Amino acid sequence: MIKKPYLLFLGDVDDRLAAKVAVGIRDWRPNDVVGQLRLPNCRVDLEIPDLSIEDAVQAGAKTLVLGVANRGGLIADHWKDVLTTALETGMDIASGLHNKLNDDERLVRAAKRCGCTLHDVRVPLTDFPIANGRKRRGKRCLAVGTDVSVGKMYVSLAMQQEMARRGLKATFRATGQTGILVEGNGVPLDAVVADFMAGAVECLTPDNDDDHWDIIEGQGSLFHASYSGVTLALVHGGQPDALILSHEPGRPHMRGLPMFSLPTLIELRDVALKMARMVNPSCEAVGVSVNTSRMSESEARTYISQVEEETGLPATDPIRYGVERLVDALISI
Amino acid sequence: MIKKPYLLFLGDVDDRLAAKVAVGIRDWRPNDVVGQLRLPNCRVDLEIPDLSIEDAVQAGAKTLVLGVANRGGLIADHWKDVLTTALETGMDIASGLHNKLNDDERLVRAAKRCGCTLHDVRVPLTDFPIANGRKRRGKRCLAVGTDVSVGKMYVSLAMQQEMARRGLKATFRATGQTGILVEGNGVPLDAVVADFMAGAVECLTPDNDDDHWDIIEGQGSLFHASYSGVTLALVHGGQPDALILSHEPGRPHMRGLPMFSLPTLIELRDVALKMARMVNPSCEAVGVSVNTSRMSESEARTYISQVEEETGLPATDPIRYGVERLVDALISI
Repeated sequence: MIKKPYLLFLGDVDDRLAAKVAVGIRDWRPNDVVGQLRLPNCRVDLEIPDLSIEDAVQAGAKTLVLGVANRGGLIADHWKDVLTTALETGMDIASGLHNKLNDDERLVRAAKRCGCTLHDVRVPLTDFPIANGRKRRGKRCLAVGTDVSVGKMYVSLAMQQEMARRGLKATFRATGQTGILVEGNGVPLDAVVADFMAGAVECLTPDNDDDHWDIIEGQGSLFHASYSGVTLALVHGGQPDALILSHEPGRPHMRGLPMFSLPTLIELRDVALKMARMVNPSCEAVGVSVNTSRMSESEARTYISQVEEETGLPATDPIRYGVERLVDALISI
Repeated sequence: MIKKPYLLFLGDVDDRLAAKVAVGIRDWRPNDVVGQLRLPNCRVDLEIPDLSIEDAVQAGAKTLVLGVANRGGLIADHWKDVLTTALETGMDIASGLHNKLNDDERLVRAAKRCGCTLHDVRVPLTDFPIANGRKRRGKRCLAVGTDVSVGKMYVSLAMQQEMARRGLKATFRATGQTGILVEGNGVPLDAVVADFMAGAVECLTPDNDDDHWDIIEGQGSLFHASYSGVTLALVHGGQPDALILSHEPGRPHMRGLPMFSLPTLIELRDVALKMARMVNPSCEAVGVSVNTSRMSESEARTYISQVEEETGLPATDPIRYGVERLVDALISI
């Protein structure tokens, strides 16, 4: 569990894409963020208060989050003075970057001296058991995609937020680094040893109230040759009661795999339900999430109508049109 | 690559099941074994020459293989004198046990002093890339099961052996510890980090002659909630041209999952082909391997006939009736 609230460290990144983790945390958990800390050459502004380490401590910050990826996804040497200062004031540090906080001797020494924790969210924290397949109490929803990076995390966070707004019991269950930093905990599933993937998902979504929903962050795609095994472990470990189908129209091929075209939403529905019903025969596909960011307003509306006609399911672009209809569909099953 | 020939170390195991790795190596690679080394209380006999370390060195042994699992799957303390002696004569040691040779200080020191290698075959030797999905030259066959432990490794080894007998080009590609010790190399797929599973399989089955068959050792089952992710990584990383369906009739439920019943062979065929054709549209199911060890001769023949009728595929119990018909079917596609 990463302690909140956060101070978001932006370093000196010069484009918004490199700051997407920080943007995600600010968008989804604004109440968990006290401000941003930017170095002199930083060109990104999250439009939240600029705070020094001292200001942030005053404002109650418990963890400095490296919300950025510089070239290579590494922790830059010239950031380390700031990071060490943060530790010396008692803040923990959390990072999803490739090189680890816990491999840096200076930071490790400072953290030890100050009694602080260095969270490398790409590294699983514990050993997991082999999955036991036991049915857990409570309900589970999982987003599955025609491809990777089609908006599975986004629709899941949006649904959890909408459910919380309605006073429903719902928890976002993070399975990737950004999701873990947003939520403050989770399992970096792609870093778990193969034998224990499904067991890790079972641990992540334990028994709960009968009317509680775990909204599980999806990973990969059952159709993506590089990552499909991780996805199937999510389906079989998660035992979802409901699937959200996710798609981005217009992609020429599966991301990173120029020789493979995307499946249709119908193909996705059929394969994902087939696999999910092996462990939960009552699983249903309840709605479709479409990323229409490359479409005009009229194209988006036409496309979404077509999807609804083809699938017989409510469809939406969560960013453009919200997720109310997906939540309506979810809670009616 | 583990150097052959082997000396098979049986320690002091008292039943044949605990020696199954050694039995497998002797059965499948008799020419790679110079003999067995048994401690005084050992009750298992592989019916090969009993050799001391010195005898084995004289006979050309390059590696001592721990072919046994004692209670807990651990390397027993009282074995270590023998193991150290083996290292001092220049032999490597290979083990598939849970505790690692490379975690034992005495063995590590002795290996270093003698310039020998300690092979822990449960541990992946290298980092693997993310799978790229590229079509490789040569052909690939994968056994898939209705459940775990239904004879996938056995049928694969039998097919490779039969193909070699006929002068066909075929390589067994090991993905589990026993297979790796039998073959002398391979990838312990269940110990690979999730993101790299399919990439590891691609590395294991690289480009080859157009008329060469990789006979890939299967793992888990697409229907088994605990391990299905590993299986799908094999299907999508292996890009098989041919599937062998594997089954053991009479099981009351999936192994280790008392709440789940086994799929039928037809269900297995349909799901496995669906997933395999995502990456290799020409993939075919070519035959069925049935473990009839709990059936009488007449029950077995009747059952296999029924399977052939239901599936339209040649079926056999590899142990009882050999795999000639499976190889005939494989090379005719």
